Amino acid sequence: MSWTRKDLLDLQSLTAEEIQTVLETARAFKAVGERVIKKVPALHGKTVVNLFVEPSTRTRTSFQLAAQRLSADIINFTAEASSLKKGETLKDTARNLEALNADFIVIRHSAAGAPHFLARVLQAHVVNAGDGAHEHPTQGLLDLFTMLEKKGRLAGLQVTILGDILYSRVARSNIWGLQKLGAQVTLCGPPTLVPRSFAELGCRVTHVLEEAIEAADVINLLRIQHERQRKSMFPSLGEYTSLFGINRQRLAAAKPDVLIMHPGPINRGVEVDSEVADGEQSVILEQVTNGLAIRMAALFLLNGGKAPQPAPAG
Amino acid sequence: MSWTRKDLLDLQSLTAEEIQTVLETARAFKAVGERVIKKVPALHGKTVVNLFVEPSTRTRTSFQLAAQRLSADIINFTAEASSLKKGETLKDTARNLEALNADFIVIRHSAAGAPHFLARVLQAHVVNAGDGAHEHPTQGLLDLFTMLEKKGRLAGLQVTILGDILYSRVARSNIWGLQKLGAQVTLCGPPTLVPRSFAELGCRVTHVLEEAIEAADVINLLRIQHERQRKSMFPSLGEYTSLFGINRQRLAAAKPDVLIMHPGPINRGVEVDSEVADGEQSVILEQVTNGLAIRMAALFLLNGGKAPQPAPAG
Amino acid sequence: MSWTRKDLLDLQSLTAEEIQTVLETARAFKAVGERVIKKVPALHGKTVVNLFVEPSTRTRTSFQLAAQRLSADIINFTAEASSLKKGETLKDTARNLEALNADFIVIRHSAAGAPHFLARVLQAHVVNAGDGAHEHPTQGLLDLFTMLEKKGRLAGLQVTILGDILYSRVARSNIWGLQKLGAQVTLCGPPTLVPRSFAELGCRVTHVLEEAIEAADVINLLRIQHERQRKSMFPSLGEYTSLFGINRQRLAAAKPDVLIMHPGPINRGVEVDSEVADGEQSVILEQVTNGLAIRMAALFLLNGGKAPQPAPAG
Repeated sequence: MSWTRKDLLDLQSLTAEEIQTVLETARAFKAVGERVIKKVPALHGKTVVNLFVEPSTRTRTSFQLAAQRLSADIINFTAEASSLKKGETLKDTARNLEALNADFIVIRHSAAGAPHFLARVLQAHVVNAGDGAHEHPTQGLLDLFTMLEKKGRLAGLQVTILGDILYSRVARSNIWGLQKLGAQVTLCGPPTLVPRSFAELGCRVTHVLEEAIEAADVINLLRIQHERQRKSMFPSLGEYTSLFGINRQRLAAAKPDVLIMHPGPINRGVEVDSEVADGEQSVILEQVTNGLAIRMAALFLLNGGKAPQPAPAG
Repeated sequence: MSWTRKDLLDLQSLTAEEIQTVLETARAFKAVGERVIKKVPALHGKTVVNLFVEPSTRTRTSFQLAAQRLSADIINFTAEASSLKKGETLKDTARNLEALNADFIVIRHSAAGAPHFLARVLQAHVVNAGDGAHEHPTQGLLDLFTMLEKKGRLAGLQVTILGDILYSRVARSNIWGLQKLGAQVTLCGPPTLVPRSFAELGCRVTHVLEEAIEAADVINLLRIQHERQRKSMFPSLGEYTSLFGINRQRLAAAKPDVLIMHPGPINRGVEVDSEVADGEQSVILEQVTNGLAIRMAALFLLNGGKAPQPAPAG
Repeated sequence: MSWTRKDLLDLQSLTAEEIQTVLETARAFKAVGERVIKKVPALHGKTVVNLFVEPSTRTRTSFQLAAQRLSADIINFTAEASSLKKGETLKDTARNLEALNADFIVIRHSAAGAPHFLARVLQAHVVNAGDGAHEHPTQGLLDLFTMLEKKGRLAGLQVTILGDILYSRVARSNIWGLQKLGAQVTLCGPPTLVPRSFAELGCRVTHVLEEAIEAADVINLLRIQHERQRKSMFPSLGEYTSLFGINRQRLAAAKPDVLIMHPGPINRGVEVDSEVADGEQSVILEQVTNGLAIRMAALFLLNGGKAPQPAPAG
């Protein structure tokens, strides 16, 4: 149950046991967030750099709070402000941050593999906060954590991921993590965004919403990214909503205790109605709270912290 | 003298006693700013979020320093950087911040009432850092604090507020606070910016500068906001300055010990001359120092801190 | 060996002894950066403001980390965000920051002399983080520190500075500091960027690369600033590189143990080849690490901290 990796880059390369170690450690840190004093001294004197070359307020803020609550110092280093605009390479930027004694580099980048590249050239711990359409491992872990907390198990759980699977790093991290821990994954959305080839990863693929939700224990909705979606792939928002948008009426065909999840921010009225997003099946805000616990756990373990004794869950 | 409110939203709804509690607490915190070590552990482990949907460097910096000096963790969450641009609603943003265990949301927003709305939907403490043309309660409190400190009393004090009253949240918070503590308020400026209807609030209204300053103990100048003022209301800066700009010559008609106040930043040569702004009647920089003490007091009291024993002032 | 200055504005006005005091103090702080806990409580409760009116991520981040490691609170106050856009003068901005109890103002400004102006009007300690084409004293100090650490002495050292000398504040701070400590400085680059008049400062001036590097113990490369260089002064990047770009072939004419230095960020393939920048003579990343130690030392000494007992170096 001990953690030996220098970096957290993806869920594809983690073992089921390593994933469980993070989940169990996060459970302990979630309790910290409920205390009056929400800080522990674990990373006192350490420096965490948020290197966000692609904008993100939520994930950056979550990592910042995680670092603060572990008593680390934190530097936000965004692309707009950075020397990357002056033609400096990512490698030079990262090496300079390491030369400033950075202990952790949390990186978000539009290029898949950028965190893996940094992990090879740096001695600092590298945490992938989202790389292109590849992976977003802390999002995957917080999704697993939330499902486990709410459903009591991951093995045998029926999880449907709905939306733009093709370009989603959230979907990929979910797929790897869920399958390693024994859940069964169904992917659903328009054929252009959910190619049959995903079946090779062991997922069930369907383009019919009813088939995707009837047996689901969890429906994980992906954000429709207006700003990024290619036109040729994606006819119109109205058409997407009419075919795949989740509302109360459609949810009547699902199990009564189905969990509704979403990585946020929500497009209300597009991929999900407000009635459902704010309803009692929704755990969207708990995902946010759990994300903080997962990120504290990740930084803590990478720093050499010891995982708590495993509970008999999983 | 104890404080029981969850939020600090406006001065209109506070009692005179509550306002005095903040002023007395700020007096104690002002002394902290003069120590070698300017920190107290009162908010250790708490998280303060600066949610500024309208830009402001000074007020945001003042709240940031106030939080730091109370040993809180602080997150700056500006509109440019935020998901509000991705179409997320204010409510979703605020709920997400709360899900990250934020204890305080300090909000500036162009819509009047935005802080009140958040206060209803959140468990976190909400502090209004300026909402549209409605109120800016910490500015009002720091103005009262400065007048009390310099004049020894508020009851019976003659205070003139000069400039664009119609669109000023600073004016409104001053009017409410000053009247509750027994000061007499005169409003002055061009007729388009100082409508007679303000007399219904109990203020004296005049459009003649001489009438406004002759008996004044305090002249509180408002910033002329080039960037916001509607053209139809406001003929030209030159005309404003020629009629209402404060210079040494005009000040000769005022009491020799009149206080010159301004919320900053000053437009030198527009609403006030440099000679007056930097002169010995000016307390503009002390207002800045006092603002920090007021904001520390506000965060401290909202957090459940106990006000000091009241001094016999007021 | 004690430090008595309120501000750190330039190297021109420092004595050799004062420069040595900073270098010796930095040596002690460099050791702090190598500890597990990289913090000391020296500036606990003090506030450092980074007032960057000209953008810079690296220097700002270095000062931010230096302040954090001394346990100070830090405020980043950038030009984009600031009231300077609203027409507020630099003096008003700085006085407001002082009124917020700022103990240190670290300023970068495009106008030469801006830090000296602030130092006269403020009680806060002012640190020049680069003013126009005038000086960048902490860069000069870190360059001296690096040379001393690697070569064991500064007296008698042959240092070549290569590039756009005319507009470089890094060059000026190097020239003053190196000459005070007894090094011999050679300046090299195109005649339009390296005027003969620099010989009056006691430097050797040459426009022939071979003459500049053959006897050099150190080659300090300046960044070619595409974005700033006037066209009339600077024909083309290709021409610069062909005449003055440093590559392995050209370096064959230098001493085998010559140090290659650069203030960063590097333009790979312009002023220096990757093979040289990443080669074993390069100490570019160590300069970054040393910059943090120099900035900690500067803040510490300005705050009244005592320099360590001098080692027999220099």
